Amino acid sequence: MESWRIALVGSGRMAHNLSEGFIQNGHVVSHLIARQSKKAKALSLHLDAQWVSFENLQQSSLQQVDIIVLAVSDDVIEEISSQFSDEVQERIPIVHTSASTPMESLKFFQRFGVFYPFQTMTIGRNIVWNEVPILIEAHHKDLESRLMQLAATISTKAQIMSHTQRKALHLAGVYVNNFTNHLVNLAQDYLEEHTIDPSLTHALVQETMLKVLDIGPKQAQTGPAIRGDEKTIAAHLAELQDKEKLAQIYKQLSESIRDHNK
Amino acid sequence: MESWRIALVGSGRMAHNLSEGFIQNGHVVSHLIARQSKKAKALSLHLDAQWVSFENLQQSSLQQVDIIVLAVSDDVIEEISSQFSDEVQERIPIVHTSASTPMESLKFFQRFGVFYPFQTMTIGRNIVWNEVPILIEAHHKDLESRLMQLAATISTKAQIMSHTQRKALHLAGVYVNNFTNHLVNLAQDYLEEHTIDPSLTHALVQETMLKVLDIGPKQAQTGPAIRGDEKTIAAHLAELQDKEKLAQIYKQLSESIRDHNK
Repeated sequence: MESWRIALVGSGRMAHNLSEGFIQNGHVVSHLIARQSKKAKALSLHLDAQWVSFENLQQSSLQQVDIIVLAVSDDVIEEISSQFSDEVQERIPIVHTSASTPMESLKFFQRFGVFYPFQTMTIGRNIVWNEVPILIEAHHKDLESRLMQLAATISTKAQIMSHTQRKALHLAGVYVNNFTNHLVNLAQDYLEEHTIDPSLTHALVQETMLKVLDIGPKQAQTGPAIRGDEKTIAAHLAELQDKEKLAQIYKQLSESIRDHNK
Repeated sequence: MESWRIALVGSGRMAHNLSEGFIQNGHVVSHLIARQSKKAKALSLHLDAQWVSFENLQQSSLQQVDIIVLAVSDDVIEEISSQFSDEVQERIPIVHTSASTPMESLKFFQRFGVFYPFQTMTIGRNIVWNEVPILIEAHHKDLESRLMQLAATISTKAQIMSHTQRKALHLAGVYVNNFTNHLVNLAQDYLEEHTIDPSLTHALVQETMLKVLDIGPKQAQTGPAIRGDEKTIAAHLAELQDKEKLAQIYKQLSESIRDHNK
């Protein structure tokens, strides 16, 4: 298997998790390009990568680098990509890791594309990269096929995806991750207010997830809303009479379950 | 370990999963009391239990039975419990498995209580009973301690809980299971409309659950709402402009995340 030499830009959650994915699969993060910070310094030491500050970006020729990977916030992708030297912009391909940003924001470079891992990233957590969808886009077939080769060394779930579809996937991720996590947060805080140990939800959280993966969310749907059990719904709303926001969410999602499963 | 002889009432999801929990831990379901149905017949054969129909309930003395477990809908608990003979009502303790129903609905019996497993039940799925909270209540300390003994043979998470707290736990379960499952359902249907494989969400569903269990939902919360990333939120709502209900849920949960984490 070909080992890629990668210049990684960023020191946030994506940079941390993605660099693990590269290294676990035999690639080398030869350069870490990041702002001065303890987090970035620790990451560059961990990766044994050459540190490049943004001030020195113009001067750095990034020798022997196969690809530049921008793992930075959407709003600085274009600006940072503009700061590399003309020679680097001509010689090395670049990708960003953003769902929302069109690849054309990288057009200062001769060759550019997208390398978007669809997963929630957390510093300090080891992601099972083998299962993470990596969505690839490139302005040219050659680069697209090269990026697919790289992605396939990290995950069995690499595929080509357009900007439009990538945005839809990202939006779906907000429901699957951000919103579900928040509902568990609301539930656990509600239990604490009733002096009930929030960890009593753990087995249910786990079984909910296993059922979704096993039989799919349509088959797995249970509860008063899908049963049309108005008595239980009314009793729950009565319990929530002093919790207006929890009650609003309860009403809206119960209605959505009813409508969706008609 | 003492082996209990149990008369189980019902043939739905609770009866199926709970009887597995009893049998796996050395107990005997000696009688299955249920309406005539294929499902009930199959269960009684599987359990090698004596079939008792509701019509014959008065005549059945339930010899050698240690406890009657009502695994039936909330709205028939009281009625069914009234149909046992006076002799049975005096001799054998009874429990129901409902979160919402007060134990006093079983007061035809001399000894009564609650045996509520906090888990989503599914015919055909093997639950990991060892981790399932079993919430116990009884009108008398002797029965309470007996029920705790029985529950402790099935799960390490048995505890005594009042009706008020049990109702709060049940309500929390709606958020943790019914609502999160529905959000995954909405997300996957949205992906299908965009001809994107819904199984691309699987790794994210799994990591979301693992993160919640590992670091808790408060620490695990990510996404545009908690970042205050109004640009991404606006872009997502623009994508949802023809999907009024999805957009309403998006707005409400995003606002709730912002408010809750202030």
